[in-house]
Amino acid sequence: MYTFETHLRVRYAETDQMGFVYYGNYSMYYEVARVEALRNLGFRYKDLEETGIVMPVLENKSKYIKPARYDDLLRIVLRIEKLPAMRMTFHYDIYNEQNELLHIGETTLVFLNTKTGKTVPTPQEVCSLLEKYF
Amino acid sequence: MYTFETHLRVRYAETDQMGFVYYGNYSMYYEVARVEALRNLGFRYKDLEETGIVMPVLENKSKYIKPARYDDLLRIVLRIEKLPAMRMTFHYDIYNEQNELLHIGETTLVFLNTKTGKTVPTPQEVCSLLEKYF
Amino acid sequence: MYTFETHLRVRYAETDQMGFVYYGNYSMYYEVARVEALRNLGFRYKDLEETGIVMPVLENKSKYIKPARYDDLLRIVLRIEKLPAMRMTFHYDIYNEQNELLHIGETTLVFLNTKTGKTVPTPQEVCSLLEKYF
Amino acid sequence: MYTFETHLRVRYAETDQMGFVYYGNYSMYYEVARVEALRNLGFRYKDLEETGIVMPVLENKSKYIKPARYDDLLRIVLRIEKLPAMRMTFHYDIYNEQNELLHIGETTLVFLNTKTGKTVPTPQEVCSLLEKYF
Repeated sequence: MYTFETHLRVRYAETDQMGFVYYGNYSMYYEVARVEALRNLGFRYKDLEETGIVMPVLENKSKYIKPARYDDLLRIVLRIEKLPAMRMTFHYDIYNEQNELLHIGETTLVFLNTKTGKTVPTPQEVCSLLEKYF
Repeated sequence: MYTFETHLRVRYAETDQMGFVYYGNYSMYYEVARVEALRNLGFRYKDLEETGIVMPVLENKSKYIKPARYDDLLRIVLRIEKLPAMRMTFHYDIYNEQNELLHIGETTLVFLNTKTGKTVPTPQEVCSLLEKYF
Repeated sequence: MYTFETHLRVRYAETDQMGFVYYGNYSMYYEVARVEALRNLGFRYKDLEETGIVMPVLENKSKYIKPARYDDLLRIVLRIEKLPAMRMTFHYDIYNEQNELLHIGETTLVFLNTKTGKTVPTPQEVCSLLEKYF
Repeated sequence: MYTFETHLRVRYAETDQMGFVYYGNYSMYYEVARVEALRNLGFRYKDLEETGIVMPVLENKSKYIKPARYDDLLRIVLRIEKLPAMRMTFHYDIYNEQNELLHIGETTLVFLNTKTGKTVPTPQEVCSLLEKYF
């Protein structure tokens, strides 16, 4: 298993008039966690895109336990629980500074060749970086 | 069962550099569908909030089948499959103008009394408007 | 002068915890107004992009007079005050349902050839559609 | 004059299909810069709101010189050029990692008492923290 922690601070723009983070904005937090987890492995998602491979989302699930609020410094614990083959799944637990679990999420993505428009297996470079954790 | 159709056009702001609607923005489309479905029933969500009841999201699930793209005129078919008690679940199927199914979503919300901070059962007004469909 | 009116309803996602529309979201409203104004002229911005011309923003100015709020049905009055040459400027006045002026904005865009990376004059097609108004 | 530098990384969500940061998202970057600049002065905007004072935006101006792109690590140089009285104006210059100036912005905010609905002068606490820079 590979795990990685990212911290980010809730922006005013991300709140809604309920005084909570708008429920659709967690997807953006997941994105930050994924990109930073990959960067930490030695891999820039941006570079992948430059080779003509993009990672569209196939499925997303979110559980809202307690609201995140403006200016909260969130801790996102990301897990990759199994080596990706045709799909890559990320799990996230999001905590506030009081270490309360606020949110659980899960996203499955695929690798898409932008020229052919077809999904492809996980690029070898990604597999190599992940293998030692499994 | 209660069903309602809403149409909305994809904004440039909602796309990302993949040329697709960013995966987190579907939550906003669901919100528009929910609010318009309730309005069609004779109920304004805004009025509910003014009585001190808000509807935070408890759970959300999304399946991305084909990408929605800039300027697409989307048709969102919303379903309420059962009468809400402590929770209210909405289902959505999203189609493009060629009638291709692009996306499936499901959101469960609760009713929260902002004064007590406690969840409450579905307000009688909402139940009354929905009962005839079940 | 060419003027066009667009209506749009404020989404929950667009509010912030102040209970107002977040100040950055007016740019998105301007975008909707521009795209619908061009569509009304007989011109789809999407089609322009497919010819390899995009319209990046050069300058934007906004005055916030009164806050727009959740569920407000806004009326955006867009004006093109002069025939575009190398730049195209749009003006917007935004009103609520009580016909109060909430907001004034102004955006200047250019036409960029994506292949050469250079700005180009207003495409002939756009000029032709606009000429009769000036 | 008070100046402060903030760094932030462009999120995928913030790009559009032109491959640039969507023009409306710079407002969010300004917000991050303002909040971090105030925090560095010893002042949390969140605490201000808890005393019943909010800071709505009165005016905003933006110049787009070169596009910011996905994954860019932006450096935002914020300046407060004069001691605020009834209004507080922030200036921003945004640079990429190659130290190219991408963007210039300026935002004027007021202090609003949420109970009375009236604007008020800059709170004494803010003045005290800023005075030594002027």
